[in-house]
Amino acid sequence: MSDVIDLACDLIRRRSVTPEDRGCQASIGERLQRAGFAVQHLRFGEVDNLWATHGQGGPLLVFLGHTDVVPSGPAESWTTDPFEPVIRDGLLYGRGAADMKGSVAAMVVALEAFVAAHPDHRGRVGLLLTSDEEGPTNLDGVRRVAEHFRATGERIDWCVVGEPSSKEKLGDLIRVGRRGSLSGTLQVRGIQGHVAYPEKARNPIHAFAPALAELAAERWDEGNQDFPPTSFQVSNLNAGTGANNVIPGALTALINFRYSTASSAGDLRKRTEAILDKHGLDWQVDWSLSGEPFLTPPGGAVREAVVSVCRDLCGVPPEESTGGGTSDGRFIAPLGAEVVELGPVNATIHKVDECVSVADLEKLPSLYEAICIRLLG
Amino acid sequence: MSDVIDLACDLIRRRSVTPEDRGCQASIGERLQRAGFAVQHLRFGEVDNLWATHGQGGPLLVFLGHTDVVPSGPAESWTTDPFEPVIRDGLLYGRGAADMKGSVAAMVVALEAFVAAHPDHRGRVGLLLTSDEEGPTNLDGVRRVAEHFRATGERIDWCVVGEPSSKEKLGDLIRVGRRGSLSGTLQVRGIQGHVAYPEKARNPIHAFAPALAELAAERWDEGNQDFPPTSFQVSNLNAGTGANNVIPGALTALINFRYSTASSAGDLRKRTEAILDKHGLDWQVDWSLSGEPFLTPPGGAVREAVVSVCRDLCGVPPEESTGGGTSDGRFIAPLGAEVVELGPVNATIHKVDECVSVADLEKLPSLYEAICIRLLG
Ligand SMILES: [Zn+2]
Ligand SMILES: [Zn+2]
Repeated sequence: MSDVIDLACDLIRRRSVTPEDRGCQASIGERLQRAGFAVQHLRFGEVDNLWATHGQGGPLLVFLGHTDVVPSGPAESWTTDPFEPVIRDGLLYGRGAADMKGSVAAMVVALEAFVAAHPDHRGRVGLLLTSDEEGPTNLDGVRRVAEHFRATGERIDWCVVGEPSSKEKLGDLIRVGRRGSLSGTLQVRGIQGHVAYPEKARNPIHAFAPALAELAAERWDEGNQDFPPTSFQVSNLNAGTGANNVIPGALTALINFRYSTASSAGDLRKRTEAILDKHGLDWQVDWSLSGEPFLTPPGGAVREAVVSVCRDLCGVPPEESTGGGTSDGRFIAPLGAEVVELGPVNATIHKVDECVSVADLEKLPSLYEAICIRLLG
Repeated sequence: MSDVIDLACDLIRRRSVTPEDRGCQASIGERLQRAGFAVQHLRFGEVDNLWATHGQGGPLLVFLGHTDVVPSGPAESWTTDPFEPVIRDGLLYGRGAADMKGSVAAMVVALEAFVAAHPDHRGRVGLLLTSDEEGPTNLDGVRRVAEHFRATGERIDWCVVGEPSSKEKLGDLIRVGRRGSLSGTLQVRGIQGHVAYPEKARNPIHAFAPALAELAAERWDEGNQDFPPTSFQVSNLNAGTGANNVIPGALTALINFRYSTASSAGDLRKRTEAILDKHGLDWQVDWSLSGEPFLTPPGGAVREAVVSVCRDLCGVPPEESTGGGTSDGRFIAPLGAEVVELGPVNATIHKVDECVSVADLEKLPSLYEAICIRLLG
């Protein structure tokens, strides 16, 4: 088997469910050290982060990835053991095969090849890995590393994120930005009581209903040339004691905006709160901004490089999208970096029988290496 | 201490949280047997029911009560042990003091006195007790006993329920009917997905919002001379996986109608379902009719007797109400009985530091005995 498949299999075998790393980064760090990289292990809380660089001076190109994976769910739902990689019909199966131990393996192999062929390349090339990308908060992953970089004055020019961006064929879609994510925990208070005495109670479910209908129907913006319209979702709604004869005293809703650069987080908060006020609710929202939107505009060096590499090596110009969820790119972009995301097909990520095409995975190092060559070669 | 207080204290000490009886009925059954009653213990499932009668032929007057109590909640929230009765400042404290071990003790003492003074009274007088009134389903309590009566041809003419009906003073309010209770478990189905890809999902919370607003705003009827308007409450609403990045696949709501005789359960079901249909929802409701409404019209013998007794012995004509929750009276009324409810002040029922006035409790047997005398003496 090829080097990249071998390494991907080794990483998949390590059961590194967030925030576990299970030695993935130690193993990669040793390889890169042997290849001449300066390697730092930045451990914050329960999270492992690896920071490896090669070269001197600017500019700095960083490959960004994560070694943690989402849980497998019930192993018996999988055709084979989720943590025992296996190849069937040209596909490599295992949790993390596509998201994103395959990309991480490809980055390592690409970086080794690049520095071997270009020992005196221009600027610096680096690899940043975390074991806290898939968790709910990401507090001690790339968010913390970015704070560390800000404190130490580390400046990143270009960043290639290995998230599985491709739709049907490797390189058919790259991400050139991401929407922002604004979350809120909304509490609507009423007055608890017995259903037989509604006049002594105030049902927060009833009180919230018209506001909820208005929030769900609201068109927050039209999007713009770079982003689809902002979307709003109530992901969780809970009220009640379980008993059917008690009017609950409060209601809790988790809400989430995925927002374009046509709106700001502050505007969305204000507009949400105005709707709650308009309906006369006794409400409170704890807001949490998980990530501002970012956009790497056309014409930037890394976006041009990634587009060219996909077109040249995969045969079609990639779709340049800002859709999808968030990624750790949201923590790197505010450092002033141009961020582009390129990885394998994402059809099976977070699912049972996650897999990646062996052919794609064997090709991916050449794409990453070609990006290095274009920018630093 | 008086006999009624002694017996109430003995019952409170028995920790008979639904469906437990803890020997309350055995002890009462022995007393009534000694007083000349024919006593049957009807045990259905985990539930104890006591059926004791005295006399021959018709008419039949039944006192109805329950020996079970709601849980005390955290005992440390109480001033003293909820299952260790104590008198402070003229109030008897303990779980069940007001709902309704006090009434049960008063019924027993009243029945003993009545049959001692009127050994050859007209018709029959009976006591029916269950240990499953406070539970969520009441399947094996008075509901089952009523089926048993229907099967054995037992016919009840008059029923006095000991539920704590009084507002501020003993006898200031009696219940002459109860609203019906219709419950439903509503499920609204959507399509689960990721909040970043709302176009691939269908959020059941958003879909349900306008229907919920309409249901909450609906005026179901205007009530009538006997009943307040029908009221609708969503007591529980739950959707979501806990994660804030997942659009839920389904939503569950528990709904409840407390309905007057101005509406029927069938109408309310149809109108609810029409609103769900109108909003294009993928819905399902499991309906459960906990009790049809019942009304004991003015002029009936037991209502006249209870009103007179309250006026004569408590000094004011009682308010004759159909408000409040349901009671086991809903299972007896369909047997053809006239049902009236009279018991102590209900201010503390189901609460911490539940209590009943010692003076009221010492007076209650004379009220119940006076009812016996008026109807059967
Ligand atoms: Zn990922
Ligand atoms: Zn009760």
